[in-house]
Amino acid sequence: MFDLQLLFPVLGALGLVLAVSIYRTILSHSAGTDQMKSIAHEIELGAMAFLKSEYSKLLVFVLVVAGLLFFSFGWQTGTSFILGALCSGLAGFIGMKAATKSNVRTAMAAKEKGLAGALYVAFNGGAVMGLSVASLGLLGLGVVYYFFSEGGLKFTSIVSGFSMGASSIALFARIGGGIFTKAADVGADLVGKVEAGIPEDDPRNPGVIADNVGDNVGDVAGMGADIFESYVGAMVASITIALTMNAEVITQYFGTHFSRSLLTSFPLVLCMVGLLSSVVGVFSIRILKNKSPDLALLLSQLIAGFLFLAFVGGVLLSIDKGYRLFIAVCAGQIAGLLIGKITEYYTSAQPVRQVAKASKTGPATNVISGFAVGLESTCAPLIVIALAIQLSYTFAGLYGIAVAAVGMLATVGITMTIDAYGPVADNAGGIAEMSGLGPDVRKITDDLDSLGNTTAAIGKGFAIGSAALTALALFVAFKEAVSASSETEITMSLSQPSVVMGLFLGAAMVVIAASLTLKSVGRTASKMVDEIRRQFKEITGLLEGNAKPDTGRCVSIATNASLKEMILPGIIAVLFPVVVGFTMGPETLSGALAGALLTGVTLALLMANAGGAWDNAKKFIEKGTLEGASKGDDTHAASVIGDTVGDPFKDTTGPAMNILIKLLSIVALIIAPLL
Amino acid sequence: MFDLQLLFPVLGALGLVLAVSIYRTILSHSAGTDQMKSIAHEIELGAMAFLKSEYSKLLVFVLVVAGLLFFSFGWQTGTSFILGALCSGLAGFIGMKAATKSNVRTAMAAKEKGLAGALYVAFNGGAVMGLSVASLGLLGLGVVYYFFSEGGLKFTSIVSGFSMGASSIALFARIGGGIFTKAADVGADLVGKVEAGIPEDDPRNPGVIADNVGDNVGDVAGMGADIFESYVGAMVASITIALTMNAEVITQYFGTHFSRSLLTSFPLVLCMVGLLSSVVGVFSIRILKNKSPDLALLLSQLIAGFLFLAFVGGVLLSIDKGYRLFIAVCAGQIAGLLIGKITEYYTSAQPVRQVAKASKTGPATNVISGFAVGLESTCAPLIVIALAIQLSYTFAGLYGIAVAAVGMLATVGITMTIDAYGPVADNAGGIAEMSGLGPDVRKITDDLDSLGNTTAAIGKGFAIGSAALTALALFVAFKEAVSASSETEITMSLSQPSVVMGLFLGAAMVVIAASLTLKSVGRTASKMVDEIRRQFKEITGLLEGNAKPDTGRCVSIATNASLKEMILPGIIAVLFPVVVGFTMGPETLSGALAGALLTGVTLALLMANAGGAWDNAKKFIEKGTLEGASKGDDTHAASVIGDTVGDPFKDTTGPAMNILIKLLSIVALIIAPLL
Repeated sequence: MFDLQLLFPVLGALGLVLAVSIYRTILSHSAGTDQMKSIAHEIELGAMAFLKSEYSKLLVFVLVVAGLLFFSFGWQTGTSFILGALCSGLAGFIGMKAATKSNVRTAMAAKEKGLAGALYVAFNGGAVMGLSVASLGLLGLGVVYYFFSEGGLKFTSIVSGFSMGASSIALFARIGGGIFTKAADVGADLVGKVEAGIPEDDPRNPGVIADNVGDNVGDVAGMGADIFESYVGAMVASITIALTMNAEVITQYFGTHFSRSLLTSFPLVLCMVGLLSSVVGVFSIRILKNKSPDLALLLSQLIAGFLFLAFVGGVLLSIDKGYRLFIAVCAGQIAGLLIGKITEYYTSAQPVRQVAKASKTGPATNVISGFAVGLESTCAPLIVIALAIQLSYTFAGLYGIAVAAVGMLATVGITMTIDAYGPVADNAGGIAEMSGLGPDVRKITDDLDSLGNTTAAIGKGFAIGSAALTALALFVAFKEAVSASSETEITMSLSQPSVVMGLFLGAAMVVIAASLTLKSVGRTASKMVDEIRRQFKEITGLLEGNAKPDTGRCVSIATNASLKEMILPGIIAVLFPVVVGFTMGPETLSGALAGALLTGVTLALLMANAGGAWDNAKKFIEKGTLEGASKGDDTHAASVIGDTVGDPFKDTTGPAMNILIKLLSIVALIIAPLL
Repeated sequence: MFDLQLLFPVLGALGLVLAVSIYRTILSHSAGTDQMKSIAHEIELGAMAFLKSEYSKLLVFVLVVAGLLFFSFGWQTGTSFILGALCSGLAGFIGMKAATKSNVRTAMAAKEKGLAGALYVAFNGGAVMGLSVASLGLLGLGVVYYFFSEGGLKFTSIVSGFSMGASSIALFARIGGGIFTKAADVGADLVGKVEAGIPEDDPRNPGVIADNVGDNVGDVAGMGADIFESYVGAMVASITIALTMNAEVITQYFGTHFSRSLLTSFPLVLCMVGLLSSVVGVFSIRILKNKSPDLALLLSQLIAGFLFLAFVGGVLLSIDKGYRLFIAVCAGQIAGLLIGKITEYYTSAQPVRQVAKASKTGPATNVISGFAVGLESTCAPLIVIALAIQLSYTFAGLYGIAVAAVGMLATVGITMTIDAYGPVADNAGGIAEMSGLGPDVRKITDDLDSLGNTTAAIGKGFAIGSAALTALALFVAFKEAVSASSETEITMSLSQPSVVMGLFLGAAMVVIAASLTLKSVGRTASKMVDEIRRQFKEITGLLEGNAKPDTGRCVSIATNASLKEMILPGIIAVLFPVVVGFTMGPETLSGALAGALLTGVTLALLMANAGGAWDNAKKFIEKGTLEGASKGDDTHAASVIGDTVGDPFKDTTGPAMNILIKLLSIVALIIAPLL
């Protein structure tokens, strides 16, 4: 076993080296003209300024929580927590660095090498993030595993610490980042496009850099931290369940072929195989880049997925009862794929046409129609999750549910690559526009961007699905941990009013957090609006293009405001399980977790998909695809209103729900032994 | 016990006689000029046409279900089901008749006798509905109790049949009525106000009668059926739990002072006292009518509530352990009051100002702000419900939860009176406008209408709260019924994936139903729009006031379309628990009920309160209360868009959730013995 244990961190480290080497090859591409370099530099500076500000605030939070964990659970848990935060933070830093280097180089490649060249750079920009997330998760958890796994039951609290560290970063990056990106977007659009009448991404607009920074902050770093949290959380849940489940249950499901220690390391093995498969997927782009971009992305993902399942299946199916685990892994992988596809349907096909058509009778019908699409779109994913749970449980018990989550997330290297590709392409388009690269280049970046919107929609669906399954796995782990540490079996039955009370309290918590984040965007955006208006008024010659805007000020205003706004929902999320758990007991807490999970997932799907449908309905009309409507008319204006409503839905509050449900579960899991 | 058992139906019958006699005194008031009579007659005809159409479609449904119940559970359950449907249908008929007679008489009283006189008529118009609901519930269930209660455990399925009958009417009246009222409203406004530029309630508009019919159909008959369903459901849940709970549990909570048969009749006793108290409250208006209208309504309700609690408390507190039941009753009453007040806050005070202010930056920020208010507003009611459950359970066990629901609903006579007063006042305003009664009269009806909006908001909150508590009580009854009829105790634990799967499936069911009803409004409204446009085009001289519109056609189009649209969500709601229960078992069904309940209540609160906030933000601006904004400007236009979005939220989909959660629970309760 010794060798295997060392293999995890070593492979993780190798993956990280690979990510860094891809980063270096990106740097070898041309960064274009001086103007392009300057714009890209500003975006990079803004993004790094946000990260710096975020991380410095995080440091305080991390040290306080680490201190608490240190005193309550010992130095190992505290250390593991810091390591988790460090790994997630590092992944965000590397990914953001790569994204802000590759955006301008994608634009330049579009000019010099055409579509295939631009795709290649953008894809590699995403791959740095993808491989960093996958590698650092494996490396960090591998190190924790290597040093502390001999501790038996105590190890559950140590690995949970790592997961909680990842959650802390996710909280700041995803919620703070989500508020930042939409406040900057809305602020820049409201004053620039609507009031001053200048185009999107116009360099005269002081908010436009902040808007581009927001794409990186929200869609690269925020999304990365979210997925990292799920990835780690799924592994931690599996490990905890493996450590706490009854020996008889193990025998019942897996006979004598799977020892407890094998089951404990199994999630890490899965992720190791997933990382290797992802690397192959990432490198396959060298050959695939000459195909059409959407096919290239799809194939790279399929290659990785196929390799992963083939290898895992090959090994598991050769062991007696191994098929049980394989079914759980497949349930997770397929559920992830399905939820992504369902999301794609609701944010692109017939539903979007329906929303676009509803815009003809004005903004109200557009909003109602989009909301109805959002409601409908949550149904199928909820059913998919339900079936995945049931299937994996039937074959591999409660442990199977956690394995399904790992199965969904093991190939995160390639999933995250494709997801992070989107904002790189989006940014490349912005830079091409701002530096006047001409319509031919813009056409290429638009094509890549449009594909990026699709991958972003799928990515959002995947993020929610994986968050839900991870939170569920953590919930199961919580239940097992409570039972293992307490004398009496706790039943968590719906026939106990304390559990039902918990359900309601959990839902109440979720709606408050949702409301807070939604309002935060409005408040932060209005600060941006004030600043942009001020600059247009006070900087003479700005609108005429004779003076430069103070873009840095906009970035710093949005940074400070958004990080301030995330404090209250963050504190509520961390304290809620602690307060409920210690004052009302584990039964009520279990109900609260379930209630928050259910309401949170439903809201996340509803808001993400309604937002996506509004966004694409607007684009549908702008392309002239809707008969009797075109850009600039009343129908289009109605669709723009829906799109604006959807912005904070899909990019702030929806994603915040992902973090919330995982954070609640992981905090509950950590305090489980004390309840 | 014989005397007491006879007392329920007798008192119910007496209450009904009283309601009819109030109806006759209303008729003694003047119905005004010929024009007023003619308009009122048209509204009455339309409302009755809707009822007739609804009831004829219902007849088929009721006969089919009665047949199924007859063969599965025996003739008593089938008969009880028909009786439940009959009582609810009759209450709706009487209430609607009274509302359509009193609207015009309220307008006339405003002219002849001023504010106090108009208030008196409108209040009595509502009182007929209020007393009919309370009396028919007691009468019907009293009859069932009198004849069938000797059957022991079998009686649970018989009373459930009664409740299911009430639910069937509620399904058609509330969902069909909800679609009708908003489609007519939106259709009439869209073509009349926006396209033709004529004022609201203008007699030239062919849709305006349908709009007024809609107020009666949705807010009187629909709301009445909803509350009737809760009222009956709460009693049925208590009866079922009393019949199925363990004898030891009874002794544990209530010592030897409360026999099973006493506990079984206790909910009926509570409702009897509630009815008597309500009658006093209703008659107190004779003295109170000269006070300001809002005070008069508040005092009449407080008098009834105080009498109820005083009497119930007086008796219960004199019995050993009786305080336990009294606390449960109080928990319900106070929770109902609190939820109403919370709803009032979110749809009138600071949150509304916030939404109005957000309209300054356009419709998108208005919509986002209203949605954020809606989200926030669900938190406190969820907590109130959670605490009410916990409190009543702590003192009186699972039976206590059902008693709390009865406690909330026992004084339904006065609650429903005040609620039904709103649409009467609203209609009176419309008639005053259409028949040109002049600004003085309009001022009085406007004042009464404005108060009606507040009572409507409180009523909606109360309806949701009572639906939630009733559904919960039915859920508990379901659990007890399943346990009583099966050999093995079912645990319904959240640690069982089948239960968690149920949670997700329940939520999935709710979002689909919500989406369907939301889309139905759009489809039905567009049919109305087409018809109104056609009439404006084809009937020469209509816009000049030289020709009469074909209002009947608009009513019949809206009637047919809305009743057609409610079929699909209705069928899904009825079949869902049956399919889940029989294919996946009681554990999954219990999860599904809990999931649907939680998501349904959250959505209902969110949609009702967001809708109310948008509506009142618009009114706030129209009154000129928001600095820098006035009727007709961009800010006002933005607020109108929010209001239009909110219309189907608060009057169709939100209320549909109430019905849904109760219907699912009652169907589950009925099939419980077969699972």
